[in-house]
Amino acid sequence: MNLDKLKHQESGNFFLMAGPCAIEGEEIALRIAERIVSITDKLQIPYIFKGSFKKANRSRIDSFTGIGDEKALRILEKVGKEFDVPTVTDIHESTDAEMAAAYVDVLQIPAFLCRQTDLLVAAARTGKFVNVKKGQFLSAGSMKFAVDKIKESGNENVILTDRGNTFGYQDLIVDFRGIPEMREFNVPVVMDCTHSLQQPNQSSGVTGGKPALIETIAKAAIAVGTDGLFIETHPDPKNAKSDGANMLHLDLLEDLMTKLVKVRKAII
Amino acid sequence: MNLDKLKHQESGNFFLMAGPCAIEGEEIALRIAERIVSITDKLQIPYIFKGSFKKANRSRIDSFTGIGDEKALRILEKVGKEFDVPTVTDIHESTDAEMAAAYVDVLQIPAFLCRQTDLLVAAARTGKFVNVKKGQFLSAGSMKFAVDKIKESGNENVILTDRGNTFGYQDLIVDFRGIPEMREFNVPVVMDCTHSLQQPNQSSGVTGGKPALIETIAKAAIAVGTDGLFIETHPDPKNAKSDGANMLHLDLLEDLMTKLVKVRKAII
Amino acid sequence: MNLDKLKHQESGNFFLMAGPCAIEGEEIALRIAERIVSITDKLQIPYIFKGSFKKANRSRIDSFTGIGDEKALRILEKVGKEFDVPTVTDIHESTDAEMAAAYVDVLQIPAFLCRQTDLLVAAARTGKFVNVKKGQFLSAGSMKFAVDKIKESGNENVILTDRGNTFGYQDLIVDFRGIPEMREFNVPVVMDCTHSLQQPNQSSGVTGGKPALIETIAKAAIAVGTDGLFIETHPDPKNAKSDGANMLHLDLLEDLMTKLVKVRKAII
Amino acid sequence: MNLDKLKHQESGNFFLMAGPCAIEGEEIALRIAERIVSITDKLQIPYIFKGSFKKANRSRIDSFTGIGDEKALRILEKVGKEFDVPTVTDIHESTDAEMAAAYVDVLQIPAFLCRQTDLLVAAARTGKFVNVKKGQFLSAGSMKFAVDKIKESGNENVILTDRGNTFGYQDLIVDFRGIPEMREFNVPVVMDCTHSLQQPNQSSGVTGGKPALIETIAKAAIAVGTDGLFIETHPDPKNAKSDGANMLHLDLLEDLMTKLVKVRKAII
Repeated sequence: MNLDKLKHQESGNFFLMAGPCAIEGEEIALRIAERIVSITDKLQIPYIFKGSFKKANRSRIDSFTGIGDEKALRILEKVGKEFDVPTVTDIHESTDAEMAAAYVDVLQIPAFLCRQTDLLVAAARTGKFVNVKKGQFLSAGSMKFAVDKIKESGNENVILTDRGNTFGYQDLIVDFRGIPEMREFNVPVVMDCTHSLQQPNQSSGVTGGKPALIETIAKAAIAVGTDGLFIETHPDPKNAKSDGANMLHLDLLEDLMTKLVKVRKAII
Repeated sequence: MNLDKLKHQESGNFFLMAGPCAIEGEEIALRIAERIVSITDKLQIPYIFKGSFKKANRSRIDSFTGIGDEKALRILEKVGKEFDVPTVTDIHESTDAEMAAAYVDVLQIPAFLCRQTDLLVAAARTGKFVNVKKGQFLSAGSMKFAVDKIKESGNENVILTDRGNTFGYQDLIVDFRGIPEMREFNVPVVMDCTHSLQQPNQSSGVTGGKPALIETIAKAAIAVGTDGLFIETHPDPKNAKSDGANMLHLDLLEDLMTKLVKVRKAII
Repeated sequence: MNLDKLKHQESGNFFLMAGPCAIEGEEIALRIAERIVSITDKLQIPYIFKGSFKKANRSRIDSFTGIGDEKALRILEKVGKEFDVPTVTDIHESTDAEMAAAYVDVLQIPAFLCRQTDLLVAAARTGKFVNVKKGQFLSAGSMKFAVDKIKESGNENVILTDRGNTFGYQDLIVDFRGIPEMREFNVPVVMDCTHSLQQPNQSSGVTGGKPALIETIAKAAIAVGTDGLFIETHPDPKNAKSDGANMLHLDLLEDLMTKLVKVRKAII
Repeated sequence: MNLDKLKHQESGNFFLMAGPCAIEGEEIALRIAERIVSITDKLQIPYIFKGSFKKANRSRIDSFTGIGDEKALRILEKVGKEFDVPTVTDIHESTDAEMAAAYVDVLQIPAFLCRQTDLLVAAARTGKFVNVKKGQFLSAGSMKFAVDKIKESGNENVILTDRGNTFGYQDLIVDFRGIPEMREFNVPVVMDCTHSLQQPNQSSGVTGGKPALIETIAKAAIAVGTDGLFIETHPDPKNAKSDGANMLHLDLLEDLMTKLVKVRKAII
């Protein structure tokens, strides 16, 4: 990818977008970043720090939504500078695009919003990389139209991320046939290994998850040629402010990455 | 419903939200409204005129998106005044809520956006009725959280509309078990008889449809106790600016309503 | 239908296939039949008594499978004679066809087996009516090939029954669009109102159900023009030997049928 | 696996079940076997020759169903002896079990039939290995009950094979989360890389397929720890008597196996 700050691209490894679900505070963001940078430097994995500056689509109105937009964005900026890594955050309305673009390197479009033309165009016009998550209701083939919306707005830097398909009410299933199909659009394709394990529509209003299977999804993704992985990770998932049910414990990341680098080497 | 302009509520009939997909111009909007008002007055069906002031989530960037926001909203207002009927339009970002609320009686939240808290809260705060479409990826039970978000924002006037569930890549299926489930939330429940027949993910990037089956969906909906129907209709669907593949031809509306009133009478 | 014993066909009503899931014993079979015959005579509903002579596809090996094939078939025959009604039972292997045909009027092919050519042909060759349940994995359109297999074996007396589609792991959803599609094959189409409410893949190995929704499925089915209904019913569902989770309590049948006859009258 | 004829088990490689869909004739069966044996000996992959002695569940009655049961079974036996490899064939009714067991080493239960207790028990009682395909409508967890039915019939030699889940009408999707889940039942788990790419419910009545994606499914399967692969292959898929749409061209097998052995080595 033509993203200057992204190191280790010559290694031939997949790249990693990882971090906590939400930016909960400066200290913890820096701590998570430091740990991941240390692992990815050691394994020569290109790394982008991920954190949401607000959570706008929680099931319940009483869910945590954030610590304040600008406060969170400044933390993202600080992480980027401190560790010299690119950063990514997700936006939800057109007005977010320019604001977030002042602080991060990659703007991410949530899956539910991947058909919102205004949002895609606003993101594209910032000139930043745009990472569009595939709607759970969309085929891989249909993501071509999302790519086109961004490219026709004058921005060639598109990334597509798969996070599974709606399968009945309580499951998502990743259709790995979609990875080679989306790679044909000549954009990097990422597997979101944590959200694709969500279990939606739980009666509690809190989405469930199956973090023990992150390794399964990640290995399959790397084996089929996925360019990057998206993994939410936290040093204490149970007490995380959002998505605790499916984040990877940060202590497990190095072992997982080590295994995945081996699989990557076997296919290139 | 506590919606003053809504006539014929004493008839015991279901209510109807109907109109063209998009507001294409004043003359055609008035013509469609006149025809539907004449039919619903005759059959004593409470009626709300529907029209989108912009289309924000088309598959392709070159699809028609509208004639201009304010121009379209003024037409909606004019239809409401000229025929003394309430009107509904859909909004896509928080900033749309107040703008649209100045012209229409019901704000509609598109299915893809039904989890966007900011949008629901912005709609709720206008004090207008809020019609939330059930996400194709959500269970009926999960719509309770959408109802709560609006009620907890101080607005009791919520409507829920079913438009089918994601079923594989190319089909939607209506789960009629969800109608009694959503009616237990003490809100009127509507069946969207046209969008629930969409066939998404077509390779052309233009969503397909099965308008011949509108009668099937509508009859089943009325038989199971649905409070209202949502039907997009046009005097010339083939040349409509959007969703032509699944709108009902306006000439078929009276016959369909006549049949449905008979089914309604059989269940009350 | 060209089924001599089927009374009340001139009434214009839908027909009913109903009875317990499994034949548990003579006394209870006769008691159930007597009650249903009394209701259907009163309401002029053509009626076929249903009972399985064995249950061959239970989830668990320790589930009840039957009281003995011939014993159960003799009870079916006795019910038919005592109440002068046709009877139906399901078969699972080709060798069952001729055996069962000696006792009943309609042979039923379970949904999982609707693609087994040998079984369909064996059933067809008995000359009895053949009721094929639509596979949960098949589209309505694909049932044309099942109809053809039977007709090409020289038997024109085919019935198709819908019992829902696989929707994720734990739900079935009825696609009511399939009813008019299957009726175009010029065969009577039946809605199985009890099995379509099953909840498969429960961790206990015992399929769940939602009997409170039988009325919802039945009303929708009648409203869209379904020719017949299939309903499993029992005077004591909780203590039934199989499928207790989704049978209708026999005490509720008359009220349900009365409502459905009203809906039927509204659409013809 | 405790299957004597299965060579190369010490290599640590996955095992392979492969061959033509149907036994079309002796010459072609021997030719296919020879080729695959040569490849698997070279790469030290344990190999089981696969061929159906009849095709009992084709969509259309005019589809090819076989060359005669005993004739086909004798060819399977000859292949086994000539190349000293175990063989597998699928059975459809209880009466097939003993007949087929006289000629082959592994009896396979088709996915549609995986809940038929009589069939599973009949297969189990032959003492042969029983390979049960996971129903497209069943969760991985539910396959525990199939394993139990066989083990409780006194046979410990069970294999489970995944061939995808029903995903709407025209697609199957493999849920790779199911592989580790089924491996916990302490049985070898196989991925059927060709049938899981089928596209059912095509209007022609001939199931479609996506053979270009066999490598994608196979790599993902190996990466997540699947014990074996099932691949239908033919020297001339377009002219094969059945399932031509999704068989792997035999000329592509060696290259595919070479890649997969590399992935296997990366995960053990």
